[in-house]
Amino acid sequence: MKIAFDVMGSDNGSKNPILAALQMIKEFKDLEIILVGDEKEITEHLKQIFKDEKTPDAISIHGAKDVVPMTAGPFEAVRMPNSSMSQAVKLVKEEKADGVLSSGSTAAYLGVCHLILGEISGIKRPAFMPIMPTLKGGKVLLLDVGANIENSVDELISFALMAHIYSQTILNIARPSIALLNIGTEENKGPAVTKETYAKLKQLTQSNASLSFLNFHGNIEPRDVLSGDVDIIVCDGYSGNVVLKSLEGMATLIFSLIKKGYTKNLWTKFLALLSKPVFKGIKNTFDYKNTGGAQLIGINGICFKAHGSSDSRSYYSTLKLLRQAIDQDVTNKIKTQVAELL
Amino acid sequence: MKIAFDVMGSDNGSKNPILAALQMIKEFKDLEIILVGDEKEITEHLKQIFKDEKTPDAISIHGAKDVVPMTAGPFEAVRMPNSSMSQAVKLVKEEKADGVLSSGSTAAYLGVCHLILGEISGIKRPAFMPIMPTLKGGKVLLLDVGANIENSVDELISFALMAHIYSQTILNIARPSIALLNIGTEENKGPAVTKETYAKLKQLTQSNASLSFLNFHGNIEPRDVLSGDVDIIVCDGYSGNVVLKSLEGMATLIFSLIKKGYTKNLWTKFLALLSKPVFKGIKNTFDYKNTGGAQLIGINGICFKAHGSSDSRSYYSTLKLLRQAIDQDVTNKIKTQVAELL
Repeated sequence: MKIAFDVMGSDNGSKNPILAALQMIKEFKDLEIILVGDEKEITEHLKQIFKDEKTPDAISIHGAKDVVPMTAGPFEAVRMPNSSMSQAVKLVKEEKADGVLSSGSTAAYLGVCHLILGEISGIKRPAFMPIMPTLKGGKVLLLDVGANIENSVDELISFALMAHIYSQTILNIARPSIALLNIGTEENKGPAVTKETYAKLKQLTQSNASLSFLNFHGNIEPRDVLSGDVDIIVCDGYSGNVVLKSLEGMATLIFSLIKKGYTKNLWTKFLALLSKPVFKGIKNTFDYKNTGGAQLIGINGICFKAHGSSDSRSYYSTLKLLRQAIDQDVTNKIKTQVAELL
Repeated sequence: MKIAFDVMGSDNGSKNPILAALQMIKEFKDLEIILVGDEKEITEHLKQIFKDEKTPDAISIHGAKDVVPMTAGPFEAVRMPNSSMSQAVKLVKEEKADGVLSSGSTAAYLGVCHLILGEISGIKRPAFMPIMPTLKGGKVLLLDVGANIENSVDELISFALMAHIYSQTILNIARPSIALLNIGTEENKGPAVTKETYAKLKQLTQSNASLSFLNFHGNIEPRDVLSGDVDIIVCDGYSGNVVLKSLEGMATLIFSLIKKGYTKNLWTKFLALLSKPVFKGIKNTFDYKNTGGAQLIGINGICFKAHGSSDSRSYYSTLKLLRQAIDQDVTNKIKTQVAELL
């Protein structure tokens, strides 16, 4: 199993991605990782880490001269065929890798994956789908969070279907419950496209209808996104991005205020030390800078995106998700099921 | 100065609203409050509080037989002329009160205020506008958060104008900065209506243009809503509601996890006690169940809405905002300025 890893999109240089890759190959003996990026820089990091030892065989380097700027849009990115991002995605196209991870510009990555790999036949729009922690200790899939702005009824239904297959395959949930994001739980609430999607999903998921295997739960409000009440939340890319960034903003704000409170004086600093076990887990779980791994679902290949500010632990957990997606052949499962339904 | 206070919309009975009203008239000697609702219930509460003493002269009761259910929409509510909500709003229409507060159903309140008081001439759509705390210790106005679903370019610009006048009048900010909510800060990002509003606001706020007195800052991302970087954030009612409920959801989630962590055993409970001063302020500031007072701006009258789950402290702070809005004659100031511009 081979992963192509664009190590140049990190805000803090390529060291964190490389450390995560090394941890992965240590843990999974069936895995090879191709580090894609500036050959000199990568070699330098590996030399520093391994000193006189030999770099493990499961690690290889694919040199790429250019780096897609973090501000780049899709058009700028697809015009850079020698970028680490394009080269990493191309390795999947050429079947030299089974999946790809990048933490570069979201819009750029979307453009490059789209151009090089194309979409799954029958899926009109891909979606970014993060896997988020819930209050109940489980996971919830939210899609789309920014591959699109607006989405049609049929696109939203295709998101539900893809997430259903992902949830079954990767998260082992037998019959994942699916909700639509809305500003009220009532059927007649919200924007026209949400009301229409509600009606169509309700109809298509009735017994004997074509999507009767989907478990449609109805609407969910943004305040309950992380409640764990449902397994999948479907929305247009604009709303999803607003939810994700609002959650992220509030978490950052509260933790920074708590930190400020605990660093006021020596006594509060001492209290902070004692309270550490209380906060352990909470902060890490909901600090979106440290998680935020998302699959670009609907693309004809297994493409994951990590946050640009990820640390090595966060790259590691995204690589693990990517490995699972490859192992479970998730994209082919989506392809097959979509083809059967069309 | 007289406030009409619908005390029947509270999730926890009419006692909290009554306690808040009593605190207000104790503090502000120029203020009278008319408690609108079930006469027997209100009298009972007052009797319990004052025992053999006389109820203060600044408190009066306006009996209303019906209560608008929390699930009521606008049409159901306007068909209940004898509800405490309708009666309270009607006191403003008849100039027996200078402003009104209710914590009943949002959709119902919007409908009732709309029907009885109408809009300010020149304003097509009213907006719910909460005043939210920021990281820098100031306030930010966010509108609309749910009086509308979609909004046109001109409606969004009228929101900016009304909030500008409110911010100057009530919050004493000389030249409040105004941002549009968007999923990126770049001018060409986001939904079509946001891009058009950006272009039009940019043009209208240039020197010598008609709205050159407005301080247009550009786009702001949802994660920065509470940063304090801007004073006013304008968006359609759907997006604003999604932001508000996402922020609320995340705050509730984090505080419930922290509470869980601190109540694990005797030792953590002891730590929680010691840590109380650290958390003091943080939780109260960002617990939206305890704040959430919002003006229904654009209506031809001064109408405030409190959260149904408010405690007496939260009703008190919303009543204070309402008193200030009456004192500063905010609605007439908006009226005059809008009339001048048309």
